[in-house]
Amino acid sequence: ARENFIHLCNPHLEKMQEDILYHFALGTGTHDLPALFGDVKFVCVGGSPSRMKAFITYIAGELGLGSQGSEHPNICAGTDRYAMYKVGPVLSVSHGMGIPSISIMLHELIKLLHHAKCSNVTIIRIGTSGGIGLEPGSVVITRKSVDATFKPQFEQVILGKSVIRSTDLDEQLAKELMQCSKEINEFNTVIGNTMCTLDFYEGQGRLDGAICLYTKEEKLQYLREAFESGVRNIEMESSVFAAMCNLSGVKAAVVCVTLLDRLKGDQISSSHDVLVEYQQRPQKLVGYFIKKRLGKV
Amino acid sequence: ARENFIHLCNPHLEKMQEDILYHFALGTGTHDLPALFGDVKFVCVGGSPSRMKAFITYIAGELGLGSQGSEHPNICAGTDRYAMYKVGPVLSVSHGMGIPSISIMLHELIKLLHHAKCSNVTIIRIGTSGGIGLEPGSVVITRKSVDATFKPQFEQVILGKSVIRSTDLDEQLAKELMQCSKEINEFNTVIGNTMCTLDFYEGQGRLDGAICLYTKEEKLQYLREAFESGVRNIEMESSVFAAMCNLSGVKAAVVCVTLLDRLKGDQISSSHDVLVEYQQRPQKLVGYFIKKRLGKV
Repeated sequence: ARENFIHLCNPHLEKMQEDILYHFALGTGTHDLPALFGDVKFVCVGGSPSRMKAFITYIAGELGLGSQGSEHPNICAGTDRYAMYKVGPVLSVSHGMGIPSISIMLHELIKLLHHAKCSNVTIIRIGTSGGIGLEPGSVVITRKSVDATFKPQFEQVILGKSVIRSTDLDEQLAKELMQCSKEINEFNTVIGNTMCTLDFYEGQGRLDGAICLYTKEEKLQYLREAFESGVRNIEMESSVFAAMCNLSGVKAAVVCVTLLDRLKGDQISSSHDVLVEYQQRPQKLVGYFIKKRLGKV
Repeated sequence: ARENFIHLCNPHLEKMQEDILYHFALGTGTHDLPALFGDVKFVCVGGSPSRMKAFITYIAGELGLGSQGSEHPNICAGTDRYAMYKVGPVLSVSHGMGIPSISIMLHELIKLLHHAKCSNVTIIRIGTSGGIGLEPGSVVITRKSVDATFKPQFEQVILGKSVIRSTDLDEQLAKELMQCSKEINEFNTVIGNTMCTLDFYEGQGRLDGAICLYTKEEKLQYLREAFESGVRNIEMESSVFAAMCNLSGVKAAVVCVTLLDRLKGDQISSSHDVLVEYQQRPQKLVGYFIKKRLGKV
């Protein structure tokens, strides 16, 4: 198969003698990035640093790499902005909450993969979300990431001007992940649209924030319109993730578990243990996918 | 003096029997919030959890509360989304990077302060930023938080529709902080406008992201226009911070150190030790302000 390298959409980078990946506390002048990361084929990203640490321990066990009790060091120990772990061909990186936070991480991750001369990389976001019309604990594989008006696009402001970018995700990859879920057969999984918002409370129509100036009826009408347009879950990172992976020529997917059904409420009130089990579902699904890709199923 | 309580702009909250502050792992049903937080008068917020931990240790020493070696426990130990520390009347909370991340934190913080029946609270964001036309290490006290088109407003999308909110900050508080800096007399401090963007790379006109489709000349023209409009630094949280504190009737200020002069470059390349000292400057300034307010200077 042809090697697919990372495409950098930035002619200025060639002229830089050194590149400091500030929010990773890594850099081309201080680290041998090809030696450290050149074999990476799968990158899994998620909001919570402890969840991404749990994922690397899980995947190490699944792939038979590293003994069960072994610690996986945080590669970004020099900063507390993001956490990064690696085992074999799998990189696990936290991205915090919201579009700006994941965007900083992705700029530096895409440059890291480029500097490391990685090829044929698949990036999957494994996260949590609010569901619409789904049993809590259901997993949504994103067909399209849409904005708060249900359009499959990401608007950003560059030099003070609005720029619209496509949020297409890899259709084949989504189908492959759906097939994996069928083979595992442990939890409900659907392919659906994911709405990406800039806010958790007012931006997602919640009634329980510090500020709320609309009625319950207006909220429910909005969520029903979202459902009718094909939205099955709401989170806060998928649009810029899809847009940036697209521009960089990296195959990408978004796999999120739903912690509640937003048509029935706003507060996440399930017990800690139930939520922990829910959060393991995207990890299980993507772990199985990686094993299958590596011929270990 | 009259007691100023937190103003909650949400009629729905009264009807809730219990309020779960999910991203703090706190709640009205599980924690006695008035007992834990009722005496809070100063809330300092900043992006990095380790910096907010360092701040609580610093302020404890300055106020003579708690012995030097004592550990201050993370009140939000049940989650890794945010970190929270308290000593006497001072609360220190991390908010991650970007508008969505600080917005989630502020919704839950404002509700927490309300549930705890706090009064006369001052909230100050102490952060890092890129400067424009200032010596690195200069501290900027924000006059107005402006958007990427230099307007003093925050636009957000609620139920799919655009809503514009004011980003006014307390003028008297800014002057009081400026006076404190004069009394300390250790570093350059200015009052100026702060531009708040949704992105660190393209959104701030950097040439060193994974994606950059403009020229160096276009970048510099944009930054010069920002400077001419009164902008002295760029960060990623001040607009929603100002808008939400405004609506909640809480006096608020933004005090950020500049890590570099964006007219001269994009990469943060100062040594670790220099950057650590820079990051202590907003802490020193706000620490002195709190001491002065408490009559301890």
